[in-house]
Amino acid sequence: MAQLTLDKANQIIEGALAKAKTLGLKPLAIAVFDAGGHLKAFQRQDGTSILRFEIASGKAFGALAVGAGSRWLHNQAKDRPHFLEGLSGISGGRVMPVPGGVLIKDANGEILGATGVTGDTSDNDEAAAVAGIEAAGFAADAG
Amino acid sequence: MAQLTLDKANQIIEGALAKAKTLGLKPLAIAVFDAGGHLKAFQRQDGTSILRFEIASGKAFGALAVGAGSRWLHNQAKDRPHFLEGLSGISGGRVMPVPGGVLIKDANGEILGATGVTGDTSDNDEAAAVAGIEAAGFAADAG
Amino acid sequence: MAQLTLDKANQIIEGALAKAKTLGLKPLAIAVFDAGGHLKAFQRQDGTSILRFEIASGKAFGALAVGAGSRWLHNQAKDRPHFLEGLSGISGGRVMPVPGGVLIKDANGEILGATGVTGDTSDNDEAAAVAGIEAAGFAADAG
Amino acid sequence: MAQLTLDKANQIIEGALAKAKTLGLKPLAIAVFDAGGHLKAFQRQDGTSILRFEIASGKAFGALAVGAGSRWLHNQAKDRPHFLEGLSGISGGRVMPVPGGVLIKDANGEILGATGVTGDTSDNDEAAAVAGIEAAGFAADAG
Repeated sequence: MAQLTLDKANQIIEGALAKAKTLGLKPLAIAVFDAGGHLKAFQRQDGTSILRFEIASGKAFGALAVGAGSRWLHNQAKDRPHFLEGLSGISGGRVMPVPGGVLIKDANGEILGATGVTGDTSDNDEAAAVAGIEAAGFAADAG
Repeated sequence: MAQLTLDKANQIIEGALAKAKTLGLKPLAIAVFDAGGHLKAFQRQDGTSILRFEIASGKAFGALAVGAGSRWLHNQAKDRPHFLEGLSGISGGRVMPVPGGVLIKDANGEILGATGVTGDTSDNDEAAAVAGIEAAGFAADAG
Repeated sequence: MAQLTLDKANQIIEGALAKAKTLGLKPLAIAVFDAGGHLKAFQRQDGTSILRFEIASGKAFGALAVGAGSRWLHNQAKDRPHFLEGLSGISGGRVMPVPGGVLIKDANGEILGATGVTGDTSDNDEAAAVAGIEAAGFAADAG
Repeated sequence: MAQLTLDKANQIIEGALAKAKTLGLKPLAIAVFDAGGHLKAFQRQDGTSILRFEIASGKAFGALAVGAGSRWLHNQAKDRPHFLEGLSGISGGRVMPVPGGVLIKDANGEILGATGVTGDTSDNDEAAAVAGIEAAGFAADAG
């Protein structure tokens, strides 16, 4: 069975940074969480603002919280803002409901973890996260 | 390289209070944070209400959190309220997304810290913050 | 009646820094709170570590919490550690029970606020706080 | 001036893991924070328990909080347990006062950040942190 090892988590980060370089994105922060919602690896590029770890983590943790990429949370927030307010509360303020939190899945669709990216637009953040996950040989679910 | 020393932080506060006096503003609270988001200096004028330290700090910390003046957060809040709700949660409730939190930058555009002002209208708060930062010889970025 | 105005709060800080210079102390952080437990003024000298605002505030707020200088809390902590654990909990983690948090009193013994100092040894922090309060014409109660 | 870039932070982690391999240590979690107390890079080896990010971070953040390696906090905790309880409270529960949080300093003794390591004994954790910091060309201050 595929596993989200540290080597794989580092590959996800490298793949996301490579994609960011190709697209000419602003400096990024990239967090990789395991399926239990615990941080596995993180890198923050030079020139990012101070809360980028928390933002990247909030996207990834939010995705794991509900089993859907954070784009789904973003869409929910527009339709049912009270759902996101509740989720923020019950999670202890750990959810950032904008695109860029992407589930890491194996070939059978099982969730192995999530990647959260922040620093550029939410759409570009998500593109980098997807690229990193796929570069490591996993399937990406952006929500 | 320019540094946000305590002397400079005190100059920012003095400059903001001088501007407030010229404009005839209500009593203000003025917080100056360093680039790492830690308080460097603060003064609260007589006659302000009790939560003004937290409000001033929330404007400055919010600006540093995302690397943009708090006017940018204010505009985001109107378009994407869930982004601000998420930011409030992941920051532990430390962000106040209205104008008056202004980045302190050196001549190269590097962020040295932020000033948060509260007590009058948000627009006037911002004007005082900008005046203080410029009086100390730095560039102001209101967002 | 004597009041803890902003001018007086700034005098306290200046007096504490002058004492620190005379004693050759390490860089200090100095917080002045009003009688309601709200920050009035703060200065952090260059070269202090990042949590010094919170430490200085914890000493001053702790003193106001119980109406005694933080040296009293320090002594209580040695005899009744569970009292300080409870106080930390009910205050939301806002109390630092070591010397350096000193009550500001008027000539009648009424509490006008508190000053918290940190950066050197707790005894030296307290000496600077007392000197600042007295320089502003108030009575100091270290606990 | 020396800077704690992302490249340097990654070198610290690689150096710490190389030392751990030489010593035959248990799986480790290694966090690198910048001087402002914000996460720069993190890696958690396969086989560690779920709270290792928080433990590694608590060692590094605690060191930055007071400007001394976490071994100093460990010694303080034995002499003045209420000081550590207070520090835990005012930091929002972000301090882990045992060895393994080591300051990263430049040649002039300026603090550039801190590394926190956990997974083996505290002494071995500290040895890995020191080795990583030195491998990246910085000076280590374990407290």
